[in-house]
Amino acid sequence: MRISKLFTKTIKEEPKDEISVNAKLLIKGGFIQKEFAGVYDYLPLGLRVLRKIENIIREEMNSIGGQEVLMTSLQDPFVWQKTNRWSDKVVDNWFKTKLVNGKEVGIANTHEEPITAMLVNFVKSYKDLPIYVYQFQTKFRNELRAKSGILRVREFLMKDLYSFNRTEEDFKKFYELCAKSYMRIFKKVGIGDKTFRTIASGGSFTQGFTDEFQTISPSGEDIIYIDREKKIAINKEVFTDENLKKFGLNKAKLEEAKSIEVGNIFPLGFKYSEKIGLKIKDKDGKEKPVFMGSYGIGVGRLMGTVVEVSHDKDGIIWPETIAPYMVYLFQVENNKELKKITEKIYNDLEKKNIEVLYDDREDKTPGNKFTDCDLIGIPYRIVVSEKTVKNNTVEIKKRNEKKVNFIKINKIISYFK
Amino acid sequence: MRISKLFTKTIKEEPKDEISVNAKLLIKGGFIQKEFAGVYDYLPLGLRVLRKIENIIREEMNSIGGQEVLMTSLQDPFVWQKTNRWSDKVVDNWFKTKLVNGKEVGIANTHEEPITAMLVNFVKSYKDLPIYVYQFQTKFRNELRAKSGILRVREFLMKDLYSFNRTEEDFKKFYELCAKSYMRIFKKVGIGDKTFRTIASGGSFTQGFTDEFQTISPSGEDIIYIDREKKIAINKEVFTDENLKKFGLNKAKLEEAKSIEVGNIFPLGFKYSEKIGLKIKDKDGKEKPVFMGSYGIGVGRLMGTVVEVSHDKDGIIWPETIAPYMVYLFQVENNKELKKITEKIYNDLEKKNIEVLYDDREDKTPGNKFTDCDLIGIPYRIVVSEKTVKNNTVEIKKRNEKKVNFIKINKIISYFK
Repeated sequence: MRISKLFTKTIKEEPKDEISVNAKLLIKGGFIQKEFAGVYDYLPLGLRVLRKIENIIREEMNSIGGQEVLMTSLQDPFVWQKTNRWSDKVVDNWFKTKLVNGKEVGIANTHEEPITAMLVNFVKSYKDLPIYVYQFQTKFRNELRAKSGILRVREFLMKDLYSFNRTEEDFKKFYELCAKSYMRIFKKVGIGDKTFRTIASGGSFTQGFTDEFQTISPSGEDIIYIDREKKIAINKEVFTDENLKKFGLNKAKLEEAKSIEVGNIFPLGFKYSEKIGLKIKDKDGKEKPVFMGSYGIGVGRLMGTVVEVSHDKDGIIWPETIAPYMVYLFQVENNKELKKITEKIYNDLEKKNIEVLYDDREDKTPGNKFTDCDLIGIPYRIVVSEKTVKNNTVEIKKRNEKKVNFIKINKIISYFK
Repeated sequence: MRISKLFTKTIKEEPKDEISVNAKLLIKGGFIQKEFAGVYDYLPLGLRVLRKIENIIREEMNSIGGQEVLMTSLQDPFVWQKTNRWSDKVVDNWFKTKLVNGKEVGIANTHEEPITAMLVNFVKSYKDLPIYVYQFQTKFRNELRAKSGILRVREFLMKDLYSFNRTEEDFKKFYELCAKSYMRIFKKVGIGDKTFRTIASGGSFTQGFTDEFQTISPSGEDIIYIDREKKIAINKEVFTDENLKKFGLNKAKLEEAKSIEVGNIFPLGFKYSEKIGLKIKDKDGKEKPVFMGSYGIGVGRLMGTVVEVSHDKDGIIWPETIAPYMVYLFQVENNKELKKITEKIYNDLEKKNIEVLYDDREDKTPGNKFTDCDLIGIPYRIVVSEKTVKNNTVEIKKRNEKKVNFIKINKIISYFK
């Protein structure tokens, strides 16, 4: 992509109405734009990152047997009344609206109910199980206070998976499989070493415990206690001596940290299947409800978390796996010969499907370009200058390293392949 | 994909509450499911088709210079008040809702206003133009009567592109470029020969004419008059002697047909840019508003239209470009030797990225499988039977042809490559 064609521009001024690092950097870099509190548009650079994260999650969900669907946002109250989750007194973040005929409908904040109801049409026998259904779908949550940039918003893309098993035993196997898949996802997007599976309260979903995935960050809303040896943590909300004992954790060894919840997995048991009537005829010929679980990752929140944990004073430092482009390319001196060389490098890289953000702007100084490159946070910077091309080399620098290297022009492709 | 793993099942009974062909076939085949009138979920098979259509459109929009974004559904009334499109008396299909603090917000039915307002932040000079911004985004429209299956719904995925040009002349060039791109899209999804660029009323957008793209179908809501030689049509709503003369159409040569609107392109002129304040400093140093256009394709509606024009009494006939899978594979007799051969064909095809829906169900008769194959509408059917494997061949049949062919098993891959 030629930056001269990209309609967004980096912004020098700090956005006045943002406190969080992720919102400040993402807005300054031209990744997102605020419509109003907690409601952000994704601009071309931001959408590229979002889609890359989405694809990493999709591959993982497919690899553990997930089948992708797309449920609707508009929701008939009917099925939510069955589970007692329609009332604003029970679920306090509904957005509701009305059809022309006056009928009230909901705008979905989650999808346990409609997915369970959908499966009633397809599931009859134990032979139909297991089923794992997931989607990337926009959720709407009427948050009292949207905050922390794209970490807590009113409208966001979420990956939600729902598991349907014959027995609790089958469920537990899948639950562990999904937990491992989640850890692979967090590793792939570059926050693996800072993210811990965390024992947490079941909240409204279950009376037992649930698992959260928490990423250490000073901007997090949660407090967790980490056992680095065991690679697990426990949320402050369930941090009691009794629970520490239960999970074999030694208080003296635990390290306190602020953290961002990047994922959660819930045992749902029979709660939804019983109320909605999702039953199977089991091996013994008897009707039984289906054992369920739900598994969420906010795609935008994950993107925001990466920015929170991977940036410096100059800007974002995108991991290669989710960077909007792999290479930021520009020439120092504005002359035709150098332009010819730079254009050739651009075209060669593009031909090999190495994604390049080519800063071809002629009204910007090299200083502007160095600044934008660091702000946008592209993993590799390639600078073409008169001095280096004399030796048939260009300068190459990684965003997350200080050291500048030189590379023969005809070795650039093999460097990336 | 093994059908034994697919959670959806085909449904024998006609859905009682559906009149349209597309809804009947898509529901019976397990592509979609109705939540309530005008609100449909996409199940795994349906989502695959939807995504393939989306990708065809995306490639085309990128090829004409489109930059992809993702705007929000939640909308602050502010910018819509500027253009006088907030009031329900002006725009009668808004869904509106309220934040916790009582503030009323909209759920977007289109995005002229927010995209124009967004560009105010980035566009200063004529040098910043042209800009073409598009998205695939879920629109919500509070239709009085949802009807015709997925052709007219209350929630749907739409590709909407907005063009921003310095002059009307530049705009017109892009407008024609986009019109050609649209015709390529309709050709690629298999309805090119039935789709006509159609002169239509500007509606609320412009006092002049606009262009619609209409696909001939008995289930269409529109009536158009086609000039097959000129490959254009005129909508009944502007079918006057004066207009026929204006566009050089000869009444005697025109053919009347019912049709479905599958796309539209609108000149918007300065209407939005003036009211929202999207101005450029032009070459002459003067401030001028930007000349705009908008260009829509409903992705789900396009899918429904393909079903309307491409089906027979047995089911859907998907064009290869958007079929959920390329091959429907099954064995006739239930024995191990045949299973081994069938599994090998399945694995070989999958390895070569030829998408196969493998009907490995052992509790279904060959008759059931022939029926499901036709209903789901996969382009190629491969049947493995004892009789044919004796000659190292299998039966291969195209969904849109009557003739059954035989092919050597070791030639299957090269047949598809």
